[in-house]
Amino acid sequence: MIPPFSFARIPHILFGAGKLIELYDFIPKFGNNVLFVIGGSSLKQSGNWNKITSNLENKSINFSLVSISGEPSPTVIDEIVAKFRNKNLKLIVGIGGGSVTDAGKAISAMLTKDDSIKNYLEGIGTKIHDGKKIHYIAIPTTSGTGSEATKNAVISEIGPDGFKKSLRHDNLIPNMAIIDPELMISCPPSVSAACGMDAFTQLLEAYVSSKASPITDALAYSGMKFMSENILLACSTGASDVNARGAMAYGSLLSGIVLANAGLGIIHGLASPIGGFFKIPHGVVCGTLLAEATKVNIEILQKQGLEGKLGLKKHAQIGALLTGEHHVEANKILDYCYTLIEVLENWTENLKIDRLGKYGIEEKDIDKIVESAGLKNNPVKLNKESIKNILLKRL
Amino acid sequence: MIPPFSFARIPHILFGAGKLIELYDFIPKFGNNVLFVIGGSSLKQSGNWNKITSNLENKSINFSLVSISGEPSPTVIDEIVAKFRNKNLKLIVGIGGGSVTDAGKAISAMLTKDDSIKNYLEGIGTKIHDGKKIHYIAIPTTSGTGSEATKNAVISEIGPDGFKKSLRHDNLIPNMAIIDPELMISCPPSVSAACGMDAFTQLLEAYVSSKASPITDALAYSGMKFMSENILLACSTGASDVNARGAMAYGSLLSGIVLANAGLGIIHGLASPIGGFFKIPHGVVCGTLLAEATKVNIEILQKQGLEGKLGLKKHAQIGALLTGEHHVEANKILDYCYTLIEVLENWTENLKIDRLGKYGIEEKDIDKIVESAGLKNNPVKLNKESIKNILLKRL
Repeated sequence: MIPPFSFARIPHILFGAGKLIELYDFIPKFGNNVLFVIGGSSLKQSGNWNKITSNLENKSINFSLVSISGEPSPTVIDEIVAKFRNKNLKLIVGIGGGSVTDAGKAISAMLTKDDSIKNYLEGIGTKIHDGKKIHYIAIPTTSGTGSEATKNAVISEIGPDGFKKSLRHDNLIPNMAIIDPELMISCPPSVSAACGMDAFTQLLEAYVSSKASPITDALAYSGMKFMSENILLACSTGASDVNARGAMAYGSLLSGIVLANAGLGIIHGLASPIGGFFKIPHGVVCGTLLAEATKVNIEILQKQGLEGKLGLKKHAQIGALLTGEHHVEANKILDYCYTLIEVLENWTENLKIDRLGKYGIEEKDIDKIVESAGLKNNPVKLNKESIKNILLKRL
Repeated sequence: MIPPFSFARIPHILFGAGKLIELYDFIPKFGNNVLFVIGGSSLKQSGNWNKITSNLENKSINFSLVSISGEPSPTVIDEIVAKFRNKNLKLIVGIGGGSVTDAGKAISAMLTKDDSIKNYLEGIGTKIHDGKKIHYIAIPTTSGTGSEATKNAVISEIGPDGFKKSLRHDNLIPNMAIIDPELMISCPPSVSAACGMDAFTQLLEAYVSSKASPITDALAYSGMKFMSENILLACSTGASDVNARGAMAYGSLLSGIVLANAGLGIIHGLASPIGGFFKIPHGVVCGTLLAEATKVNIEILQKQGLEGKLGLKKHAQIGALLTGEHHVEANKILDYCYTLIEVLENWTENLKIDRLGKYGIEEKDIDKIVESAGLKNNPVKLNKESIKNILLKRL
C-alpha cells in the first residue's frame, strides 16, 4: 500500500558537463539586472569565475556581485538585502557550495520583504514567509547539501546562543538548478569527502524516514547507487574524473529533492545544534555521525520485533546496494544491516572524516547538544541516552 | 557515466485516498473565481460531482463549470476560451480522464491569448506558446495519460485530415496535481484496462527511450513495479480496492513525469495518426500495440550486437521486475526479454484489449498511418516495413 504523501515542486534541472554555458541564454529572458552570489575565494581561484565573467561580458549582461564567506548569518543576509532592495533585481544566481546557494536563496526571498530575515526563521522569528521571491538559479560547485533542490535556506549564528535555523517555503525551491560536474573538479578531497558524506546522509535518512514515499524511495535509492559507486574515487584519484564528479553531483541533487519531501533523521537533528554552537563544517558533523547513528537506529529497530521489520529491510536494501547486490533475501536482512554499518565505517575511515573533538567539542558539551537536538523524521524514537551515546562515540 | 539531461519541473503533488478534500483549502488562496472543467457524465454518475459541489458551497466558493465530451478539439477549446476570456478567472481545476485534464490545461493556457489554439499546436500552427497561463490544478479520475504531470495538452480533430497534436510548454505542467484513488473506484474495467495499458506503455517507452536518464529510470521503474503488481487486480475483482487503485494512480502519475522528461517511442508515434484518423480510445491503441512493438524493438536490438546490449538489458530488467525479480544475470538477458513480451501478451489477452480492426481500421489504411508515424525517442530505428508489421499483427 502506498501511504498518502505530498511532493513539492522541484527545480528545472540542467545536468551535465559543460551545461553552465546554458546559463547565459537564460539570463536575458529575465532582463539585464542580475545579482551573482558567490563564495569567498574558490570559484575565483579555480579560474571558473573568470570564465563566467568573460561569458557575461560577451553576452553584454550587466551584473552585480556579492561574496559570502562561510555559512550565512542573519546580519550578512540583511546587509546584502538592504543594499539591493531598491535595485529592481530580476534574477539571482548563486554559484558555490551549500552556504552560497542557501545565501542566494535567502536573498531572493528577502528582497521582497522590508525587515530582517531573523523574523522569518523557524524557531527564532514569529513571522511566516509567504514564498514571494525574485527568480533564483542555483549552481552548486560542491556535491553536498543538495540546496539547489530544497525549499529551505539554512542561516547560522555561531556561539553560545548560536543556532542553525531555516527560512522555509515550498516556493523557495530554486526555479532552476544547473548541475555542471566540471565546476566540482577543483573541490579539494577533504571538502569533497565531507560534502559527499552529507549528501549520502541525506539520501539514507530520507530513505529510512518515517515520511518516505515510493517516489522518494526510488530517487534516494538511485542517488545512493551512483554515490556509493563513486564516493571513494571522487575524493581521491578520481578527483578530476568528470564522470565520478557527475555521479556525486547527481546523488547530491537527489539528496536535496528527497530531503525536501521525506525529511531527515537524528543526524540532521544533531547537526543543527552542533553547527550553531561550534564552528564545524556541516558535512563533517553528518559524516562523523553517519555510521554510529545508523548502528543505533538498527539496534532499536531490531528490538521492536515485527514493528521494526520494514525499517530493517530498508536498511538492508542499502547494505546490499553498497556491495553491488539488488536483492535481499528474507533470512539475510540482519546480515545486510551489518554490511551497511561496516561500509559506512569504512568510508568514514577511508575519507578521513574528523571526529567532533577536533573542533573543540568535549564531553561537557554533550548534554547541551542533546537538549537542543530534534528527532526529525528518524525511523525510530531515540531517548536522550541513545543520542548521547552516538555523540560520545564520535568525540 | 550519467549522460547530460534536463528535467522539467513537476507539479506540487498531493497523493492519497481522500486527498481531494485539500482542494477546498487551496481554492480560496487564488480568490473566488474558479472554473471547473469536467467530463461528459461519469463524475456526475459516480456521485462525486455532487460531493464536490456541496463542499464548494460549504466553503462559499463561487465557480463556473464546463463539460468536455470525448477528446478536446480546437473548436471546443476556442469556444470555451471565448466564453471565459474576459471573466477574470484566477484558477482552473480539471477533474476527469486525460481528455478532461488536457482540456483544462489547454484552457488555462489559451485564456492568456486572443486567437485560436490551432495557431499554437505542434505541426499545425506557426506560433509558439510563451507558457503564460492561469494557475491550473489537475485531478485525474482515471489512471492513464499522466496528463496531471505533463507539459502538453493533446488536441484532436478526427477524420480523413484528422490529427492529434500537442500544445506544449514547460510552464504548462499543472501547478498542482491531486491524486485521490477514491475518485478512480467507479472507473469501469474496460476503461481502467485501456488507461492502465497506456500508462504502462508510457513508463516502458520512457524507460527504454534514447533520452532516458537515471532520474527518469528510477521513477519509471518504481511506477512499473507498482502497476505490474496491481494492473490485473485493479481491472477486475479489485476495482474497488483503494490500494490497488492507488498503485495504478501512482504509476500513471509517474508515467506523466517520465514521458515529459524522457520522451516516448514508436507506440506513441503511431497513436497520434491512428487517433487522428479513427475514433478509437488512446489507451486501446497503446495497449493493443504494446507487446508487438516491444517484440520488434527487442528483435532489432538483438541484431545490433554490442550496440544493442544496453537496450536489451533494460528490457530484461523490466521482464525480471514483472516476474518479481530484481536482478538480471548476464546470461539471462534474452530470457528476461522474452518474459517481458510474454507478460505483456498475457495482459493484453487478460485485460481484453481490442484489436485495431474493431474500430474500422483495415489493411488499406496501414500505409497512410505508417507515413504519418513518428519514431519519437524509440530505442532503435525502425523502417516502414517493421512499423507496418506491428500494425498488421494487431489489425
